[in-house]
Amino acid sequence: MNKKILETIEKLADIESFKDICHLQNHSNPNPSVDVLNEIVHLTRAVLFPGYFGDADVNSRTMLYHIGVNVDRLFILLSSQIKAGLCFDLRSEKNDCTLLDITANEKAVSFIDQLPGMREKLHTDVIAAYNGDPAAKSFGEVIFCYPSIRAICNYRIANALLKLEVPLIPRIIAEMAHSETGIDIHPGATIGDYFTIDHGTGVVIGETAIIGDNVKMYQGVTLGAKSFPLDENGNPIKGIQRHPRIGDNVIIYSNSTILGTITVGDGAVIGGNIWVDTDVPPGAKLVQRK
Amino acid sequence: MNKKILETIEKLADIESFKDICHLQNHSNPNPSVDVLNEIVHLTRAVLFPGYFGDADVNSRTMLYHIGVNVDRLFILLSSQIKAGLCFDLRSEKNDCTLLDITANEKAVSFIDQLPGMREKLHTDVIAAYNGDPAAKSFGEVIFCYPSIRAICNYRIANALLKLEVPLIPRIIAEMAHSETGIDIHPGATIGDYFTIDHGTGVVIGETAIIGDNVKMYQGVTLGAKSFPLDENGNPIKGIQRHPRIGDNVIIYSNSTILGTITVGDGAVIGGNIWVDTDVPPGAKLVQRK
Amino acid sequence: MNKKILETIEKLADIESFKDICHLQNHSNPNPSVDVLNEIVHLTRAVLFPGYFGDADVNSRTMLYHIGVNVDRLFILLSSQIKAGLCFDLRSEKNDCTLLDITANEKAVSFIDQLPGMREKLHTDVIAAYNGDPAAKSFGEVIFCYPSIRAICNYRIANALLKLEVPLIPRIIAEMAHSETGIDIHPGATIGDYFTIDHGTGVVIGETAIIGDNVKMYQGVTLGAKSFPLDENGNPIKGIQRHPRIGDNVIIYSNSTILGTITVGDGAVIGGNIWVDTDVPPGAKLVQRK
Amino acid sequence: MNKKILETIEKLADIESFKDICHLQNHSNPNPSVDVLNEIVHLTRAVLFPGYFGDADVNSRTMLYHIGVNVDRLFILLSSQIKAGLCFDLRSEKNDCTLLDITANEKAVSFIDQLPGMREKLHTDVIAAYNGDPAAKSFGEVIFCYPSIRAICNYRIANALLKLEVPLIPRIIAEMAHSETGIDIHPGATIGDYFTIDHGTGVVIGETAIIGDNVKMYQGVTLGAKSFPLDENGNPIKGIQRHPRIGDNVIIYSNSTILGTITVGDGAVIGGNIWVDTDVPPGAKLVQRK
Amino acid sequence: MNKKILETIEKLADIESFKDICHLQNHSNPNPSVDVLNEIVHLTRAVLFPGYFGDADVNSRTMLYHIGVNVDRLFILLSSQIKAGLCFDLRSEKNDCTLLDITANEKAVSFIDQLPGMREKLHTDVIAAYNGDPAAKSFGEVIFCYPSIRAICNYRIANALLKLEVPLIPRIIAEMAHSETGIDIHPGATIGDYFTIDHGTGVVIGETAIIGDNVKMYQGVTLGAKSFPLDENGNPIKGIQRHPRIGDNVIIYSNSTILGTITVGDGAVIGGNIWVDTDVPPGAKLVQRK
Amino acid sequence: MNKKILETIEKLADIESFKDICHLQNHSNPNPSVDVLNEIVHLTRAVLFPGYFGDADVNSRTMLYHIGVNVDRLFILLSSQIKAGLCFDLRSEKNDCTLLDITANEKAVSFIDQLPGMREKLHTDVIAAYNGDPAAKSFGEVIFCYPSIRAICNYRIANALLKLEVPLIPRIIAEMAHSETGIDIHPGATIGDYFTIDHGTGVVIGETAIIGDNVKMYQGVTLGAKSFPLDENGNPIKGIQRHPRIGDNVIIYSNSTILGTITVGDGAVIGGNIWVDTDVPPGAKLVQRK
Repeated sequence: MNKKILETIEKLADIESFKDICHLQNHSNPNPSVDVLNEIVHLTRAVLFPGYFGDADVNSRTMLYHIGVNVDRLFILLSSQIKAGLCFDLRSEKNDCTLLDITANEKAVSFIDQLPGMREKLHTDVIAAYNGDPAAKSFGEVIFCYPSIRAICNYRIANALLKLEVPLIPRIIAEMAHSETGIDIHPGATIGDYFTIDHGTGVVIGETAIIGDNVKMYQGVTLGAKSFPLDENGNPIKGIQRHPRIGDNVIIYSNSTILGTITVGDGAVIGGNIWVDTDVPPGAKLVQRK
Repeated sequence: MNKKILETIEKLADIESFKDICHLQNHSNPNPSVDVLNEIVHLTRAVLFPGYFGDADVNSRTMLYHIGVNVDRLFILLSSQIKAGLCFDLRSEKNDCTLLDITANEKAVSFIDQLPGMREKLHTDVIAAYNGDPAAKSFGEVIFCYPSIRAICNYRIANALLKLEVPLIPRIIAEMAHSETGIDIHPGATIGDYFTIDHGTGVVIGETAIIGDNVKMYQGVTLGAKSFPLDENGNPIKGIQRHPRIGDNVIIYSNSTILGTITVGDGAVIGGNIWVDTDVPPGAKLVQRK
Repeated sequence: MNKKILETIEKLADIESFKDICHLQNHSNPNPSVDVLNEIVHLTRAVLFPGYFGDADVNSRTMLYHIGVNVDRLFILLSSQIKAGLCFDLRSEKNDCTLLDITANEKAVSFIDQLPGMREKLHTDVIAAYNGDPAAKSFGEVIFCYPSIRAICNYRIANALLKLEVPLIPRIIAEMAHSETGIDIHPGATIGDYFTIDHGTGVVIGETAIIGDNVKMYQGVTLGAKSFPLDENGNPIKGIQRHPRIGDNVIIYSNSTILGTITVGDGAVIGGNIWVDTDVPPGAKLVQRK
Repeated sequence: MNKKILETIEKLADIESFKDICHLQNHSNPNPSVDVLNEIVHLTRAVLFPGYFGDADVNSRTMLYHIGVNVDRLFILLSSQIKAGLCFDLRSEKNDCTLLDITANEKAVSFIDQLPGMREKLHTDVIAAYNGDPAAKSFGEVIFCYPSIRAICNYRIANALLKLEVPLIPRIIAEMAHSETGIDIHPGATIGDYFTIDHGTGVVIGETAIIGDNVKMYQGVTLGAKSFPLDENGNPIKGIQRHPRIGDNVIIYSNSTILGTITVGDGAVIGGNIWVDTDVPPGAKLVQRK
Repeated sequence: MNKKILETIEKLADIESFKDICHLQNHSNPNPSVDVLNEIVHLTRAVLFPGYFGDADVNSRTMLYHIGVNVDRLFILLSSQIKAGLCFDLRSEKNDCTLLDITANEKAVSFIDQLPGMREKLHTDVIAAYNGDPAAKSFGEVIFCYPSIRAICNYRIANALLKLEVPLIPRIIAEMAHSETGIDIHPGATIGDYFTIDHGTGVVIGETAIIGDNVKMYQGVTLGAKSFPLDENGNPIKGIQRHPRIGDNVIIYSNSTILGTITVGDGAVIGGNIWVDTDVPPGAKLVQRK
Repeated sequence: MNKKILETIEKLADIESFKDICHLQNHSNPNPSVDVLNEIVHLTRAVLFPGYFGDADVNSRTMLYHIGVNVDRLFILLSSQIKAGLCFDLRSEKNDCTLLDITANEKAVSFIDQLPGMREKLHTDVIAAYNGDPAAKSFGEVIFCYPSIRAICNYRIANALLKLEVPLIPRIIAEMAHSETGIDIHPGATIGDYFTIDHGTGVVIGETAIIGDNVKMYQGVTLGAKSFPLDENGNPIKGIQRHPRIGDNVIIYSNSTILGTITVGDGAVIGGNIWVDTDVPPGAKLVQRK
């Protein structure tokens, strides 16, 4: 270590160099941990789809034990991360984090309470993927291999946490699926049953998008914002409704872009590589002009 | 652990809640394991491209030892996973899995037997990537950095296993490369020598696609199905021919979509962002209309 | 292990079968290691964004210690990998690698010396991402979740190493971010401050692209080469200028493709799904024809 | 790697150099694995003393799940190691190992069946250690800290496996405790309830020793063989009775040596540093001469 | 898993089968963890003897960073384990553990506060070992190799924690050194400076033993209790004074046993294999009778 | 982290507080690493006794590969640790360590060159253990379970390194076996073939002891120094001859102590618990007086 490096270390540890951008952890509570959140996602998947994720050896006789141990650990880890997320959000108020334990535990219990329902919903997504793809050989293949199952699974986890008003954590979990699958679903989106995305790379579903039941998408589809109103400083106003509403039984082929607060009616079919920024009536079939 | 969680555990372990969707492992054999399959892919890459994948310290003097140990371990792991895949496929017949050991071993031996040929084929893909990209500085850089090499490597592994009639495993291996590279090649596709994909994110190559020698693609290219005949229940018929046939010496630029059982003739060039669903004659040059 | 496998091992270890394609490590120095480079990226991120990457428990009181230990380890690992990269480049000259230690150490020191400046630049990218996305709730959320931050972070690391004339390593580091985020930025590109990419999957920024300050891109944007001159063997000439120059304050919407050595003027806005291969004047607004 | 090392490798891999001393694994079955046996001991301890060994977080509500998962894994690992031990014993008969699966599973089931009784016996040993040592503050301290509990626990595991006629494995498990505690109890010894050893380093209890109930020993006590009859080659005859029989309620103080097929009567007390090779009557008190 | 195993699992998870012997963790707080305590000992050794334990790469320039990170982690882990120990002690009082955080933190701070003094004391022990053994080549060799340094180090850690009234943890830490070195020093013993034990296997130093400065022992020495008064139930009374007091400058050769509340005067020398249960005057030299 | 801890960190990182006792690593070379030396011992054992240590799956067909990979790694690690040991010894001379690479490599090659001979010698030790113990069922059991094999194995490794004039490392390796087995053999001792130690806990064999062929010892035997001449400062003179010479075919029973530069003649038998400090004639049989 020569002297130059020592000087650089001093510079990098100087609070002036990170105070604006980094989180000031002045309440001696750890930040959320992406590694722990990864384990949380793995545990939840192992509980929802036992035998596919987690221990490959689980069978119906030993199911109770494996679910029990996994939920036990999930509860402990999730409580700690929910607390870390809540605490992160409170950064200007110094001493409140110790009071967050009970809230965090309650939110973790509520989340776990929703797992059986989440499995039922994901069940419908598996059926939709199997039915919709001639290449799918079995439900098992869909669960093992289809990136859309992983992306929707993380979305349903993240959406449940968002509704429980857990800050920050839902977005990190959604982004894990984005990194793993190329499918970027914002936890704030609303998505119905029997949802499936084929291949999926490049799909973007925005924060205020609403998707009905039995919708199918292909790779590269964007449900995006067209434009967004700016505040007095010229920056976008946060959290405003700005994404499309997709009806039931809609199919959107690859690389099409649906923008703005428009409505795509029930049963519409949108061909590939199309740019849509106006309402689409129910049952309509849009194709690219030749 | 409060009482609510214990009740949720009971619900999640209730066979009614998972029997339709999950695989019933009633023959006390483990499911395929994505973690072990990951190790299998790492070992195979280390055997095919020693020094780039696996131990960075291997050299020509110690090559035999490293190859020997890696192939030894590959054989053991692959046999077990092929057995798990075969057993998964037999789920309704309870007691047959113990008889699958010999079959699994034979298939693993056949797979290993193909590795020298697989290295030769991948050699041509490396040359194609190097020759085709002005940014490529050496073969070594191509093997270390180019996602197409990883995706094609997994494809060639998965395709060999599929031809050996190993169920499920090939799709999992292909999907690993999809997650790693954004390139989604179905193991059932047929791909010639000197194949290269630049950048590659978003590429989709369907189950029944056929690609000749010396073909080059860019990111976002889809070789997909246009439509597929439905069975009496309104679901797609499985396994039917439905993807394009691409001739030799074809170039397809970024984000173009080639759909259906069409033929793209030898030496054709397809420009970027184009939607093609009819035959393309040999030597043709398609560009986007302005 | 039956006899057939032993024969295959012999074939795979036969120098004839790998000498053309693999690197001949005849100087008893290890190849660069992707695993070690992964740790280098993690350490650098932990130093640049403490608390977000690396130890979640770091706070302003313990910052100096954590930065110190991480930089110490970064220096050791980076020196070894720079040496491995330099040595890899020298493959025809057998005995020079032992002399590379000092050069490698110097380059590692120079790299570390740039970390404070790199943090400042990345600071501007975080601000740009936060300001540009109505869904972003805080700087912390941007650093934790936005793939563009990871991709630009790796780009800035790789670009610094490339300028220090470290071979091979920069491309491997850039490709790590490509795999993680679907954003493929060549280390040779030149990128200004306040740069942001929303969603990002499928973005490609070529080796000789130049991007001004305060530029925003969406998913699927390509800054690519239109065509490249061939040498006497019909192969592309390496390293020639072939990508666009993007001015300041430019926005490029999703899936648009900008090709060739064109210039996009300051303040231009390029709509989604557009193919651009001619200069765009400052302040112009291009949209897709209906 | 210079040439000399390559030659040494050849020598070390020459079958002539290891065939007499090493086990010839000519039936393609792995040897027993000390690492797996270590995990087996950890799992068994975690099942017998939950909360002390294994997961520190287990409580009465989650006990069933943790015991279930641990026994599940114990069964799988133990079956495989029992098979490896049986197979190791058959080395001259080449093809029988595949038939050993059922036998191995049965023995593993029988072992697990004995765990509740084993816990009861160990319970008495904990009580004896607590009652016998003024320094012991609680049962919990005894289980966490007392080496005798670990040594007796491994002894009771090894003894049960020995009675199930599992070769080799019991001795390896006993030796693990010897290494951990300095207490060397042969799995073939017979030991009653309420057995305790204080400190324990250097204790040796031979293969054919018999110990009654409520016996207490201190460090350095040997229950050994005095001499053993030789066979025609001048080597000791294997497996013959050659160690002492210790009655109930006996105390043996530190570093005393009890040798040969003698009997120490009920209630006897043997002082420290004494050499005993004749019968000791019930209730006798032996002390070192001054 | 056959039915028999499932029944065994039920038996083993039945609270009746473990409630007397195991700790009832009814306050949802984890038990102390031997694994975490192991890490605590490693961290403390790394802080006390940097470069010998922990990171081999530390040097005087980077010392501050490594000490800082290690003490930071030590504080976090030690606080949690002290709390677990305090909570374990409170088992009959159900709800108090949440109040123990502050106490645990305070005790951890007090412990860390003593580390500089502990290093000074251990410094004298290293000097004593080096001076006392003709085989010792350097201080470095003593710290790296001498089991007495490890045993005394753990003793000094455990003794400090015991004085801070931390339950259970000190005994576990002392037993770790016993397992590692064969030297069993009770944390309650009182030991002066310049203390050394050569070889050490089998040494036992009891709970109420007192040892002066500059004392040297060899392997197999016991400072034990001769007898202990029983309570009304016939069990030993806990915690009573029952071990010897050893003066300054005493040498005790191998395998000697010093028993009871006797005093060995300053400067005495006790030969090997001797049994001592009466006072030894200052300067006396005891040898075994021939 | 409160302020008190920060002050303690400063104190502990103050060079004054560690400069006398710790090694000053002022040449930016790492210390020897006990973790790496542990791996070195494991690799050497795996090479000497394949199938017993290291990979349980090795068989005669794959032996060459496993030996090759293990020796390759052994060479790399051992060279680095020999260099670290040599450098540690040079602490006052600042800049010489970079010149030690070649010396370290040569010593590592010499060590590896001795492995086939070392295996032959250890072969004789296995035979001696098997023949000498009625409880030993097979050579395999001896290698798997007998602590004397591990202790003698480490001794033979350490002795070879000591003869190659490698500082520090041999003692660390010997101490590893001491910790594992309770058998403390100094690397400087000279030990013949067919050597065996039964049980072994507490055995001490001093630096200048000489042991003939076919010697058998039991637990607790010491070959120690009686007294050692002091230098002008009252400290023992280093490295002087001070331990016994044991002839061929000698048996020494448990807990006996042989002290000083005496000779025990060929074929002598020394009973248990005896203190011997004068020559023993050949063929003599010493027993404890009653």
